[in-house]
Amino acid sequence: MTTRIAVLGATGYTALELLKILARHPDADVRIATSRQTDQGSVQDVHPALKNSMDVPLTQLDVASIGSEVDFVFSCLPHAASANTICALIDAGVKVVDFSADYRLSDVSVYEKWYDVEHPDGERLGNVPYGLPELYRNEICDANLVANPGCYPTSAILALAPLLQKGIVSPQDIIINSTSGVSGAGRTTNTAFQFCEANENVKAYGVGSHRHTPEISQYCSSAAGEPCDVLFTPHLVPMHRGILSTCYVRPVGGASSGDALLTLQTAYQDERFVRVVNHSVETKNVANTNYCDLAVYDSGERLVVVSAIDNLIKGAAGAAVQNFNLMCGYHETTALL
Amino acid sequence: MTTRIAVLGATGYTALELLKILARHPDADVRIATSRQTDQGSVQDVHPALKNSMDVPLTQLDVASIGSEVDFVFSCLPHAASANTICALIDAGVKVVDFSADYRLSDVSVYEKWYDVEHPDGERLGNVPYGLPELYRNEICDANLVANPGCYPTSAILALAPLLQKGIVSPQDIIINSTSGVSGAGRTTNTAFQFCEANENVKAYGVGSHRHTPEISQYCSSAAGEPCDVLFTPHLVPMHRGILSTCYVRPVGGASSGDALLTLQTAYQDERFVRVVNHSVETKNVANTNYCDLAVYDSGERLVVVSAIDNLIKGAAGAAVQNFNLMCGYHETTALL
Amino acid sequence: MTTRIAVLGATGYTALELLKILARHPDADVRIATSRQTDQGSVQDVHPALKNSMDVPLTQLDVASIGSEVDFVFSCLPHAASANTICALIDAGVKVVDFSADYRLSDVSVYEKWYDVEHPDGERLGNVPYGLPELYRNEICDANLVANPGCYPTSAILALAPLLQKGIVSPQDIIINSTSGVSGAGRTTNTAFQFCEANENVKAYGVGSHRHTPEISQYCSSAAGEPCDVLFTPHLVPMHRGILSTCYVRPVGGASSGDALLTLQTAYQDERFVRVVNHSVETKNVANTNYCDLAVYDSGERLVVVSAIDNLIKGAAGAAVQNFNLMCGYHETTALL
Amino acid sequence: MTTRIAVLGATGYTALELLKILARHPDADVRIATSRQTDQGSVQDVHPALKNSMDVPLTQLDVASIGSEVDFVFSCLPHAASANTICALIDAGVKVVDFSADYRLSDVSVYEKWYDVEHPDGERLGNVPYGLPELYRNEICDANLVANPGCYPTSAILALAPLLQKGIVSPQDIIINSTSGVSGAGRTTNTAFQFCEANENVKAYGVGSHRHTPEISQYCSSAAGEPCDVLFTPHLVPMHRGILSTCYVRPVGGASSGDALLTLQTAYQDERFVRVVNHSVETKNVANTNYCDLAVYDSGERLVVVSAIDNLIKGAAGAAVQNFNLMCGYHETTALL
Repeated sequence: MTTRIAVLGATGYTALELLKILARHPDADVRIATSRQTDQGSVQDVHPALKNSMDVPLTQLDVASIGSEVDFVFSCLPHAASANTICALIDAGVKVVDFSADYRLSDVSVYEKWYDVEHPDGERLGNVPYGLPELYRNEICDANLVANPGCYPTSAILALAPLLQKGIVSPQDIIINSTSGVSGAGRTTNTAFQFCEANENVKAYGVGSHRHTPEISQYCSSAAGEPCDVLFTPHLVPMHRGILSTCYVRPVGGASSGDALLTLQTAYQDERFVRVVNHSVETKNVANTNYCDLAVYDSGERLVVVSAIDNLIKGAAGAAVQNFNLMCGYHETTALL
Repeated sequence: MTTRIAVLGATGYTALELLKILARHPDADVRIATSRQTDQGSVQDVHPALKNSMDVPLTQLDVASIGSEVDFVFSCLPHAASANTICALIDAGVKVVDFSADYRLSDVSVYEKWYDVEHPDGERLGNVPYGLPELYRNEICDANLVANPGCYPTSAILALAPLLQKGIVSPQDIIINSTSGVSGAGRTTNTAFQFCEANENVKAYGVGSHRHTPEISQYCSSAAGEPCDVLFTPHLVPMHRGILSTCYVRPVGGASSGDALLTLQTAYQDERFVRVVNHSVETKNVANTNYCDLAVYDSGERLVVVSAIDNLIKGAAGAAVQNFNLMCGYHETTALL
Repeated sequence: MTTRIAVLGATGYTALELLKILARHPDADVRIATSRQTDQGSVQDVHPALKNSMDVPLTQLDVASIGSEVDFVFSCLPHAASANTICALIDAGVKVVDFSADYRLSDVSVYEKWYDVEHPDGERLGNVPYGLPELYRNEICDANLVANPGCYPTSAILALAPLLQKGIVSPQDIIINSTSGVSGAGRTTNTAFQFCEANENVKAYGVGSHRHTPEISQYCSSAAGEPCDVLFTPHLVPMHRGILSTCYVRPVGGASSGDALLTLQTAYQDERFVRVVNHSVETKNVANTNYCDLAVYDSGERLVVVSAIDNLIKGAAGAAVQNFNLMCGYHETTALL
Repeated sequence: MTTRIAVLGATGYTALELLKILARHPDADVRIATSRQTDQGSVQDVHPALKNSMDVPLTQLDVASIGSEVDFVFSCLPHAASANTICALIDAGVKVVDFSADYRLSDVSVYEKWYDVEHPDGERLGNVPYGLPELYRNEICDANLVANPGCYPTSAILALAPLLQKGIVSPQDIIINSTSGVSGAGRTTNTAFQFCEANENVKAYGVGSHRHTPEISQYCSSAAGEPCDVLFTPHLVPMHRGILSTCYVRPVGGASSGDALLTLQTAYQDERFVRVVNHSVETKNVANTNYCDLAVYDSGERLVVVSAIDNLIKGAAGAAVQNFNLMCGYHETTALL
């Protein structure tokens, strides 16, 4: 049974990956693609790579009518703008996966502190499943709105949640050092992401202040059953796609890397998209896929968990389609292998 | 007054950078360049970039005669091979900067454990100055043998030594997360460093086991006046040159990032090649230079010190010429600006 | 109906792409993967990206038994070695797509001149279809052996054949200037393809002597119905995958770029994998796809035809599966969209 | 004797390279740096790499006073804006190197056709030396205004001028296929030069219409003594700096690549910055240098001349300082080795 789909904010890199995946999905029928920049032309004009595989006109978002035209919305709108729109869509009976941060945090005050904006739909917070099927599959299956996780949080939470849940590692003093390809910044024209600025360059950014910190902290805390103390530092490296997160955690009760490895293997043994490996984790092995690769090492008094994803796929568009599949009753891996 | 020079192991990337710098040095006269791979042709055949600026035949190393032909040797030989040769050179009255790890550690047993080889000249350990002029300038000026620092250690030690020395940060629980460009691996033909393996890829390597760990630990401990607990994790990123080290340390007595910044500024106020900045540290700003850039941030309960160098210059060839200048009585910055 | 498959020479980059595509193919059953380097482990050990999607042990090639175990062979062996093996396979009733150059040229003496080796199966030359379905679909459908085209030739021949066939451009004085990503060199450990040699670098290579010259010339001549004079110059650029060919040709009888565009559009109007566009052709639009993009420009007295493919997909593994689909009666696009 | 200098338009990539070179120049005293974007802060704020080596406040251009404050101006202003300013500067007795195209063409109508703007100082055209010292050294030494060449033209003209002048190659049917790193586009925020657009991508641009075409044509024609027919196609490749030009020319009277090589060697035998080589020309060998490397090949009925420069150095800032040195009576290579 086909699902009629709208993609809101269809001109960015995440939307391009989403449209590529949906073009391969036998039951996805993309009817609407909106842009706030233009209502001229089609998605192929913005994304020439789509030629011969998918085309939809670019239109301005019309919230009033969208409910009668589609069954499902992927919202790639920026935070605040997204929640503003989604309220109305949910009321109109449309199911939604939201790529923005608007429904990821359970506490309005935390959201408003980190995002520095009033939340347009604050009362819904805390009741929207977080779109990591490996942790929240049942809730996602039953939901009409799912908060698609941030890219860095996906890499960190998949690495740490089972270890925290089983008490293998301490909730205190978690240090997450992440590196991301430049597509994480979106299709912006910011000078900092020009080729000649980002090529042959590495830098840390948002040190102590990146907005993914409370998101990582919240879902790690949920897994641990107690508040987690998370320090998160992202870095920009000269590649298109990929995130590597190197997580420094304290083992509890003498747990070894072998114990941690076994815990991760057990937790993810039935998961198609998480691969716990005993060799080096590298972003190139997950590029253009929905996989998350995990490995564990001993290092001095710490365990080091290394995690790799493609930020645009498992960190965004792939996870969104995985959630879509669950919410619509398709096989979870459809169009993702 | 001209110094006659030999470069041992002249075919690698570090040697190329060294030869480029020496070609600009008004008092450096490179007479000999040796290679273990070939005694055919000249350095220009291996390094076409040198054409019109420097040429020396490639020869096999002749330890017996080298003492009469040159005054100074840069040894770019691998560890163990280097010390083996250097013994004889020192006896012949030649001054030496050694790029290998052979004389960096003060304890033979630590060397033999991490490098898994018997030290050919172990009794000299502990008496060879470490070639970081910012910390050991006086010793270097008086030395006939200097141990040129490792690239990762240079980035980490310059970031941390003043803070440890002044008691601003704790010697316990130091986490150093470093990323390096691929030239750090040298001019090898290892599959892992092929373009198609290293491009669009990030990985951690040597987790818990990289040989620069004891070197960082030793010189941090010297600065602190007590043993330091250092966890070091290197990563490979797709760029040619540059190291960024993100160092997570615990402040002592409520020290803030402002306190740490002031400490670093004070420590390096007369240093031409260390720049303490209040903006983002990025490897591109130090590429092809002998600079080390440093910045400090607060992040949760930690201070984060970020350090950037060009691994081939301040992390190798530039530092070597800086040491050469000091050992031979030239101005420290000659050929390095 | 499932086809049992062997992949010969399964450790290279082309084989990796082939295995990824076959993992998505509903009717492909990869039973055998051979390597001349090793018979230890499986394809996942060499290609960790395949984990969770495909696994086959790596074995030594056993020509005697392979005919009873599989129906179809993809040979990724080097030239000469490939034809040597394929003789026996064809006799055993197995269908074969050959990635090497062994069956691409129709004239043994041309082969032996350019490849500098005696052809092990020379009498078959001239009777093996060239695996460009857009030009030779009928022959491919009926064949038990197909010569998979070279990557550069694919980009050039698709750009020029219809124009030569229709007499829009002259067979004389064709200049093809191509640039390729580094994966075109295969998974070699040659120093020239090390990251630090190939990154931030462009060079021409094989000027006047590249082995793809006679291949381009032969199939352009077939299209023109008379001998073509082709000058081909490949260049290496710092990217993983992609070929851009800029073809300088002389229009005949005052033909304009508009005439050439129309000719290409007409020739390829029913082709799923060739996209004739009226905007800039860029390799990123065809990366990881089986598409070939084409555009035409006027420039002085010449027409300039620009062509882009992914060298590993449309230039190798994708074309091979397209041929496989035709030879086995599957839909031509299966596993390729 | 020190020269007081102003740099107009000091915020771009070319200006950064210029300032780095001038910081090493013993007789250059940079007094003024102007920006049309800002008069806040200093060049170090825009170019943090300059810290510890050079600092000048960023100011708005004041044409009236500049003549009394400096002796020499490097104008990095855009075309038309540059000539507008330079008129006044020349009148004030200041010497100028102009990086723009304003004074490169000798014919106002050609300028106005290709640049689509009225020339503000047209009567001076034809009397301004073209800043290629290898061809116009005497004129440059005597000039108070020099037109710094375009980057592509530098690479092409140095490759072809001696061959045209000596009648080794034909002025007809010259095809120049060039590839450039992204810095050639300047420090723009254009989407097309974002990392994620330019990385892992190659494309042709400005086919048949690039503004460097008439410049190449004019100076090739000067060398040939008759009109040259030049077809020029630039390409963008994923690297920071470097241009490789592959020039396809017709030999005259049976001239071989050996004849051409000898002609180039003879022409440039006393030139410090042109290296005629008998091995592969690669941009990495000239990166960060003022060298131009040249090689010649036979290919079918053509000679192929390959040329490599660093577009920011020999193609811009290095050439400018070479001209500055000649115009001010310094040694031509000062600060350029």
